[in-house]
Amino acid sequence: MTFHIDGADKSVFVGGVPIGGGSLPVRIAGPCAVESRKQIIEIAEIVKKSGAEFLRGGVFKPRTSPYDFQGLGWEGLKYLKEAGEKTGLPIVTEVLDPYHIDRMVEQVDLIQIGSRNMHNYALLKAVGETGKAVILKRGMSATLREWILAAEYLAASGNGNIILCERGIRTFSDYTRNTLDLSAVPIMKKETGLPVLVDPSHGTGLRELVIPMSKAALACGADGIMVEVHNNPEKALSDGPQSLMEDGYTRLVSEMEIFRYGKNG
Amino acid sequence: MTFHIDGADKSVFVGGVPIGGGSLPVRIAGPCAVESRKQIIEIAEIVKKSGAEFLRGGVFKPRTSPYDFQGLGWEGLKYLKEAGEKTGLPIVTEVLDPYHIDRMVEQVDLIQIGSRNMHNYALLKAVGETGKAVILKRGMSATLREWILAAEYLAASGNGNIILCERGIRTFSDYTRNTLDLSAVPIMKKETGLPVLVDPSHGTGLRELVIPMSKAALACGADGIMVEVHNNPEKALSDGPQSLMEDGYTRLVSEMEIFRYGKNG
Amino acid sequence: MTFHIDGADKSVFVGGVPIGGGSLPVRIAGPCAVESRKQIIEIAEIVKKSGAEFLRGGVFKPRTSPYDFQGLGWEGLKYLKEAGEKTGLPIVTEVLDPYHIDRMVEQVDLIQIGSRNMHNYALLKAVGETGKAVILKRGMSATLREWILAAEYLAASGNGNIILCERGIRTFSDYTRNTLDLSAVPIMKKETGLPVLVDPSHGTGLRELVIPMSKAALACGADGIMVEVHNNPEKALSDGPQSLMEDGYTRLVSEMEIFRYGKNG
Amino acid sequence: MTFHIDGADKSVFVGGVPIGGGSLPVRIAGPCAVESRKQIIEIAEIVKKSGAEFLRGGVFKPRTSPYDFQGLGWEGLKYLKEAGEKTGLPIVTEVLDPYHIDRMVEQVDLIQIGSRNMHNYALLKAVGETGKAVILKRGMSATLREWILAAEYLAASGNGNIILCERGIRTFSDYTRNTLDLSAVPIMKKETGLPVLVDPSHGTGLRELVIPMSKAALACGADGIMVEVHNNPEKALSDGPQSLMEDGYTRLVSEMEIFRYGKNG
Repeated sequence: MTFHIDGADKSVFVGGVPIGGGSLPVRIAGPCAVESRKQIIEIAEIVKKSGAEFLRGGVFKPRTSPYDFQGLGWEGLKYLKEAGEKTGLPIVTEVLDPYHIDRMVEQVDLIQIGSRNMHNYALLKAVGETGKAVILKRGMSATLREWILAAEYLAASGNGNIILCERGIRTFSDYTRNTLDLSAVPIMKKETGLPVLVDPSHGTGLRELVIPMSKAALACGADGIMVEVHNNPEKALSDGPQSLMEDGYTRLVSEMEIFRYGKNG
Repeated sequence: MTFHIDGADKSVFVGGVPIGGGSLPVRIAGPCAVESRKQIIEIAEIVKKSGAEFLRGGVFKPRTSPYDFQGLGWEGLKYLKEAGEKTGLPIVTEVLDPYHIDRMVEQVDLIQIGSRNMHNYALLKAVGETGKAVILKRGMSATLREWILAAEYLAASGNGNIILCERGIRTFSDYTRNTLDLSAVPIMKKETGLPVLVDPSHGTGLRELVIPMSKAALACGADGIMVEVHNNPEKALSDGPQSLMEDGYTRLVSEMEIFRYGKNG
Repeated sequence: MTFHIDGADKSVFVGGVPIGGGSLPVRIAGPCAVESRKQIIEIAEIVKKSGAEFLRGGVFKPRTSPYDFQGLGWEGLKYLKEAGEKTGLPIVTEVLDPYHIDRMVEQVDLIQIGSRNMHNYALLKAVGETGKAVILKRGMSATLREWILAAEYLAASGNGNIILCERGIRTFSDYTRNTLDLSAVPIMKKETGLPVLVDPSHGTGLRELVIPMSKAALACGADGIMVEVHNNPEKALSDGPQSLMEDGYTRLVSEMEIFRYGKNG
Repeated sequence: MTFHIDGADKSVFVGGVPIGGGSLPVRIAGPCAVESRKQIIEIAEIVKKSGAEFLRGGVFKPRTSPYDFQGLGWEGLKYLKEAGEKTGLPIVTEVLDPYHIDRMVEQVDLIQIGSRNMHNYALLKAVGETGKAVILKRGMSATLREWILAAEYLAASGNGNIILCERGIRTFSDYTRNTLDLSAVPIMKKETGLPVLVDPSHGTGLRELVIPMSKAALACGADGIMVEVHNNPEKALSDGPQSLMEDGYTRLVSEMEIFRYGKNG
């Protein structure tokens, strides 16, 4: 069997910005969930000002409980799109449902397949057929081989614009929400050649770990950092404790600089 | 928040057979995948003769690699249905794709949501809306709370006909494919009141463990055993090493007897 | 390399009672820790009356914190020995320190090497040299191969009187203290031929799971059940929540009967 | 309860070199095991020349199988000491047995308690009483709280010269020997104030990951890197595949520079 993903270095262009393939590491930031027009526009302005190249925000949310906030849906996407246009930032959001794909693909710059759906092969095939640039997060207990093969589902369906994202695996950990597996970064880059991002917000679940783990991620070769930023984490409808505030994000971007340039220097 | 799943004992009737709620434990058997008309009919006759009450067989298969056998699809379902009718056994198959649900619901007696899709909330909601009896397998690294909440997604969408199935969790295990977590049986029965099945085939990945672990499952209260049976495991297109042959299944059913009656005796 | 442990069925005799090799499964019971002369004598009488063949009790305790109760030491052993003599029950206790081995070996019938010391090869070698019957608990994240090789350390040092004990492994579990891996029972019996016990008290951490998991353990072939019993669990200095009271232990022994005889019947 | 380990920043001096407390990160290198006088002297010269401040080498080896090379014992220690003296490097070796402690403490500069013995409280207490500087590796499935309390055993026995070392945890990982948990570095530094080293050799088991993971470790605040270096990994009696050769170690030291100074810069 000849695999589409063959280890050759590859960069993916989204909104004119290159990701991977030796480019400067990118910064993707935004709230866990779009909560209102005002909220997403404020946060977009914060992350834009701090230096981020992409705005993220969930509109359909995969929540463990059916009674937790499920996202604003298409209304939320409208706000996210407006925030992206206002700031000039390309937008990223997660897709959960094959029925949503066509409409999403038209409106967003970068689709995300979340950890809970890495093994959802129907979704992988359907997103694969669109050819749209896609972030494929690692499943919470996926081996690297399973993750590679999930990416191959996308590629085999005709989509070569794949970006991987390590977001922590499930272990017996008592302090952190997940165990961020940074060794996955150099391994996956070598095995797939695809860009590999790191999400230290979900990877640790703790705001104070976002900066050190972002620096560590860049030091071992990550092609970008995706973090949660909120303008009012105390009142966030989801993931408050792991979200940075404006000053935290500004500090993160500043502390990351040496590692971003070190990468190519 | 009032949960639909409240711990009250519940039995689910499928094809006239009660599952859970103190009924005699049921036996669900069949191949991992329907491979041909002849194969599924032969296996159906084997499991019927041995005493099984349900016939299982995959037609859309969630395979780790896109290049592995993906199942016969609707053609496979036609064969499975024919095998069920010939033997009088109600049929069980897995659904992967929201687009397939309506057609499946018309043709099968019992829908299965597999381990890889336990966190696929779009699928859970869509299956929930049908009201069709459904087996919800535990995700490979799902906590019990996450599993309960996945069932609650089904229930909150209007489907009370939920049957749980423990199938092993992912650990560092070196001998078995997964670690069968039998303590989940008494806990989930108490916490949800729903029927709880055990799948020792996936739970261990080893044919020789199917009989001892089936007995153990019944001893701690399981409401049924779902196993893979194949008429020619050496040539099976998937899961051969964990599939029982005819004599193995006959022996399993025979050895289970004391534990099935012990349950209510 | 010829291994001493070669898979041939073996029974170990302790205090005249055979363990393993097709014998009736044994019952080992007693408190986590000996707390006073009165406590251990009372509990010994309870477990003797209920049918146990062995009395267990910790005197040197491997506690996670240095500030938790560390056991009564040699004074505790004196009480344990007295309780054993009063009831005619052979006694079992854990050894932590190579310096203690000689004195312990003289006084107890069966030595235990706990989960935290399964990889403590200095201790394994020293206990191995005594030839004393020994229970080797599985390390909390030991693979089966590592456990087999730990037993081989004992055997290679000249000790063939080895009894294995599954006590749960560390996973992401949210309800139970550990995940009891019952599939280890048939695998280890086949691979080593040694007797295999199960400890559902540590294996689950929850009193209400002790009975169902003991039955499951016997159903898949365990050669004995080791449980924690306390006369006043609310006031126990350790492991109260997983200890049975007198009526619980009586019920356990009674419910185990069918499975004990089923094993050989 | 007042803990001895209270989170206040602390540096430990070994052979005149400060570790932790804001000092420049240290470099500890050497073979998994001392195999001969010639081997350890050659390797000592390599690591000295490359910039390492400490020489490591195992003389009593905790091997999974009793039939694997168990180390040269006291003879090995004599060679290690000679190699240390020749190069002026302080030496580090692991202690397995309470009976060895006194003799070791006289001869080595820094004692190591390995992963398999983190829960060996008899050893912790005995090493604690010596007051000797000690590296306490994290147990292979130890939670951070358990690790902190193991350090507290040392401290409560009178030893404040404690250095922690993250060396990977046991997970379902398919590529790496362990999963290196770098988030433990900032957490343990904050919770304990003690120096925290990282061992990427055991943490990954793969030579090609040693450099990227060392850089990542320093980027998130590690106080030193301990790696395995061998002059002939193909013929190493243990851990060959994860050992660096001379040129690899030289490259590691060189690539680490920016991160070592970045730490304080």
